[in-house]
Amino acid sequence: MPKLAILLGSKSDKSYAESAEIYLKYFGIEYEINIMSAHRNPALVTEFATNAREKGYSAIIAGAGMAAHLAGVVAAHTDLPVLGVPLPGGVMDGLDALLSTVQMPAGVPVATFAVGKAGMRNAVVFAAQIFALSEPGILESLKEFREKGSRLD
Amino acid sequence: MPKLAILLGSKSDKSYAESAEIYLKYFGIEYEINIMSAHRNPALVTEFATNAREKGYSAIIAGAGMAAHLAGVVAAHTDLPVLGVPLPGGVMDGLDALLSTVQMPAGVPVATFAVGKAGMRNAVVFAAQIFALSEPGILESLKEFREKGSRLD
Amino acid sequence: MPKLAILLGSKSDKSYAESAEIYLKYFGIEYEINIMSAHRNPALVTEFATNAREKGYSAIIAGAGMAAHLAGVVAAHTDLPVLGVPLPGGVMDGLDALLSTVQMPAGVPVATFAVGKAGMRNAVVFAAQIFALSEPGILESLKEFREKGSRLD
Amino acid sequence: MPKLAILLGSKSDKSYAESAEIYLKYFGIEYEINIMSAHRNPALVTEFATNAREKGYSAIIAGAGMAAHLAGVVAAHTDLPVLGVPLPGGVMDGLDALLSTVQMPAGVPVATFAVGKAGMRNAVVFAAQIFALSEPGILESLKEFREKGSRLD
Amino acid sequence: MPKLAILLGSKSDKSYAESAEIYLKYFGIEYEINIMSAHRNPALVTEFATNAREKGYSAIIAGAGMAAHLAGVVAAHTDLPVLGVPLPGGVMDGLDALLSTVQMPAGVPVATFAVGKAGMRNAVVFAAQIFALSEPGILESLKEFREKGSRLD
Amino acid sequence: MPKLAILLGSKSDKSYAESAEIYLKYFGIEYEINIMSAHRNPALVTEFATNAREKGYSAIIAGAGMAAHLAGVVAAHTDLPVLGVPLPGGVMDGLDALLSTVQMPAGVPVATFAVGKAGMRNAVVFAAQIFALSEPGILESLKEFREKGSRLD
Amino acid sequence: MPKLAILLGSKSDKSYAESAEIYLKYFGIEYEINIMSAHRNPALVTEFATNAREKGYSAIIAGAGMAAHLAGVVAAHTDLPVLGVPLPGGVMDGLDALLSTVQMPAGVPVATFAVGKAGMRNAVVFAAQIFALSEPGILESLKEFREKGSRLD
Amino acid sequence: MPKLAILLGSKSDKSYAESAEIYLKYFGIEYEINIMSAHRNPALVTEFATNAREKGYSAIIAGAGMAAHLAGVVAAHTDLPVLGVPLPGGVMDGLDALLSTVQMPAGVPVATFAVGKAGMRNAVVFAAQIFALSEPGILESLKEFREKGSRLD
Repeated sequence: MPKLAILLGSKSDKSYAESAEIYLKYFGIEYEINIMSAHRNPALVTEFATNAREKGYSAIIAGAGMAAHLAGVVAAHTDLPVLGVPLPGGVMDGLDALLSTVQMPAGVPVATFAVGKAGMRNAVVFAAQIFALSEPGILESLKEFREKGSRLD
Repeated sequence: MPKLAILLGSKSDKSYAESAEIYLKYFGIEYEINIMSAHRNPALVTEFATNAREKGYSAIIAGAGMAAHLAGVVAAHTDLPVLGVPLPGGVMDGLDALLSTVQMPAGVPVATFAVGKAGMRNAVVFAAQIFALSEPGILESLKEFREKGSRLD
Repeated sequence: MPKLAILLGSKSDKSYAESAEIYLKYFGIEYEINIMSAHRNPALVTEFATNAREKGYSAIIAGAGMAAHLAGVVAAHTDLPVLGVPLPGGVMDGLDALLSTVQMPAGVPVATFAVGKAGMRNAVVFAAQIFALSEPGILESLKEFREKGSRLD
Repeated sequence: MPKLAILLGSKSDKSYAESAEIYLKYFGIEYEINIMSAHRNPALVTEFATNAREKGYSAIIAGAGMAAHLAGVVAAHTDLPVLGVPLPGGVMDGLDALLSTVQMPAGVPVATFAVGKAGMRNAVVFAAQIFALSEPGILESLKEFREKGSRLD
Repeated sequence: MPKLAILLGSKSDKSYAESAEIYLKYFGIEYEINIMSAHRNPALVTEFATNAREKGYSAIIAGAGMAAHLAGVVAAHTDLPVLGVPLPGGVMDGLDALLSTVQMPAGVPVATFAVGKAGMRNAVVFAAQIFALSEPGILESLKEFREKGSRLD
Repeated sequence: MPKLAILLGSKSDKSYAESAEIYLKYFGIEYEINIMSAHRNPALVTEFATNAREKGYSAIIAGAGMAAHLAGVVAAHTDLPVLGVPLPGGVMDGLDALLSTVQMPAGVPVATFAVGKAGMRNAVVFAAQIFALSEPGILESLKEFREKGSRLD
Repeated sequence: MPKLAILLGSKSDKSYAESAEIYLKYFGIEYEINIMSAHRNPALVTEFATNAREKGYSAIIAGAGMAAHLAGVVAAHTDLPVLGVPLPGGVMDGLDALLSTVQMPAGVPVATFAVGKAGMRNAVVFAAQIFALSEPGILESLKEFREKGSRLD
Repeated sequence: MPKLAILLGSKSDKSYAESAEIYLKYFGIEYEINIMSAHRNPALVTEFATNAREKGYSAIIAGAGMAAHLAGVVAAHTDLPVLGVPLPGGVMDGLDALLSTVQMPAGVPVATFAVGKAGMRNAVVFAAQIFALSEPGILESLKEFREKGSRLD
């Protein structure tokens, strides 16, 4: 079963991860949430990203606000798919975090989703779509999810 | 071997796909490029997206400009991972296409990459990262790619 | 008597349609409100748009937020006039929805109105202006409306 | 046969109207192009808008750039459908003209289209959609246009 | 003694004018506040602007939000100095009103001030600066105002 | 006869002032152009602004780009009307200069005009409108200018 | 021991300086907070900036909102390092203040930090980094601060 | 004598550093330019930043475009003052790089300068201002530079 890592740049971002828990449970995805900042705990982030594959993770979600470097820094240290979620709180309702996450240079991609809760939930659904390529059980859940109108609440 | 579909909203977007060909070849990804507009050929797009999985595709890249709905419409009709690339040409250097691609509602994700060529190339690298979860050969290429500084030109 | 369809991307958008009801009643426009998402219920939207003319509709209002594709998807499946209303809730007070609605490529127009309630009301007034081309009764109401200073509340 | 008025805020905007001529001819729409500025020739604009319906026009397209007031001023003086086309040339690739055209207060709508040539062409297609409500010939052309992929060039 | 006209696009904008009253009184400027919308009462606005000079006004302040055309429409009908104040309430905290007010084409100026209350107050101070060119009493008040640190509250 | 000072933040801005010369000559306004930067020559700017009234100036135009402080610094040192012209060259086609010029705090107004040449020309026309309050000759020119459609070229 | 000056454009900005006090105390930086507006008290600002070095200051933090000229005006009158903090309250969550602070012309730098409290705190940490170049005690505090995860609360 | 490190995210950014060379020479600052990307060569960047102080550097300039993480990543690994220069090339003339550089979270500052060449030159002047706190020779050069009007070309 694939395992998903969720990284948040700050403790205050926890509600965003919580808003996605219903999705994580629905798809039966094994996951772990860690708070680590690309700027305050760079060694921790580097180490986590570098070892994520051999620790059994298949994808990493990184959510951060303002000059949101977390997803980009993680992507620089792993070949795993990195899913970035820009969080609001800076200027222009999170446009700063969106541009900081999505405008990666060629060669080091971050798959970016909408600003805030919708983005966090979609990163989980997208992880399910990746995992479904090799996990028939998750593919079943995805089909059922579609039939419900792609929403859980 | 996983197969990748690349959809472009307009013939005039072809140079963006071409800029990614060196990456497609490097990772040895089998792919097909199709021009189809979400607005001008909606039935074609719907049909393509609906049948993509059973036609053997494992992921779909969709590149479009302005009110870039292509990736979102594709995502509405498939459970495959959809990678969206906003293209410039509208207002504010492609900010219109970026927001139209990335701001998807919860439940129907589009993994979005940078505006323009960097984004198209990164969508290919990201597809390689997804495929590498089950294809050791692509994982090897990714590692080698990293050692070259994540660039081919 | 022409009939107007009002589509909303989400149940949470209902207050926008309600804010226009006083206008709908004033002009005596027959209408129906439906909740259907371009992303969550694409088949429903396609079917609705495709059959709208023969079901007797003369125009369609589509209101949605964020990457607001609803109006564009409807416009791709009908030759009826499509009126798009961007709704707030995403980034920059609805600029995302505005650009996603208005920046349609040549050939598939969406007539776009202001973000939010003003836009929803104006879409109704504009529908009245279209219908007035062949309905003298609505033209009378429009003239009276102008004499009241173009406002009802 | 319905007649369409096309107003441009400045002589330098003429190329935008020309880019739409192929569409005007295709749909067989009778039209007249006038250059008149809401700011430099306000009496002319007021008079034109006030008398447009009795002069036989069924809709008015107004294209202008920067603080693009032309469409709004026209809409203030007529009950005919007014289609606004924001033109580039000011700041942020025409975002100034877009916001000046679309953000009309409740009661006085301007149906707004994309910035620049795509918008001008779409205003013509949209006029054809309005006219087709009572002109079967134009409806035929619209259907044929759709079958060609909604493009003429 | 010069007389100042203050026009507001909507009754709901009254608090902005009220926030400037302390300044109007301080400089002893004779003024009149009128609510009239460029879009809802265009004839009223045209008439007011056209006759303002002969009615004894020396300058006109026009405050409006969203697609704020009021100042521009007034400026099109008078040679008096027109001072525009963009008001918030639309998208991006009033950026729509700012661009709609300031981006006037060459030949028809609107002197534009900050969005909201600061702008309304500054339009009054600026009117005092204009009037002070020929009114020594107002010049005295301006000097005293500067000595107080250019603030009244 | 009133005298107008035109200040430019940099030698490279000269073409903007030149584009207004035809207007200055048309209205017969006596003027002087000076290059002085609020940041590089602050003492010069302070001195110029402080003494401008007693040197016989009746208004000051200040044109600058990027973090355009020139008009604001001048306004801080004089009670004369200060007309600010934001110039392009920084980010977003001069939005940086526009916001830096127009968003002055209550008490110290800068009358702001459009970004670039249109703004420089309008600052001159606006100066003519101010001067016309006491100069019948300039008022005549303004009326004639309006009759020509408010343009000279 | 180096001394730091903190200037705020308005009394209402005081909470921003207060949010940084815990940082000032942690690093043991001697400081003084002064309220002075570049627009309302220009002579005071000029004098303060001109004499700051000989009064023993080693760096100046300037925080202001809207058309935030304070940091730029200070930088024009001193060779000391000037640290600018844009404050929210104008349009687009402080984008106006950010652009007014950071877009300085070549030759007169303002080191700019994030909008609001994060920026004020970072200006203090950055001042500590400058002072640490010659003060081993502050360097020790910086190292300890890093070990705590670069946060104090 | 203090030593300055200049890091650029990409070879294509070299012209920006070259535009600052005349300033580096004027102030007699010893410097070294290195090309290293936060995303492509993260280990190199981490190592450089971590060891910069003991290698004798007193400040680090980091210039990068798009999702410009370079300055932030460097700042995460050193206590030296980090000066960030956003470079154009992405969306909105470098607004993406500006927000990605300046919007750092509290605790890890990046002193940010204008987008592009002006910013690169100002980062050098600012480094000179820091170094001048302990180097009388550089202080002399700064004073002379001010007397020349703060420009070298």
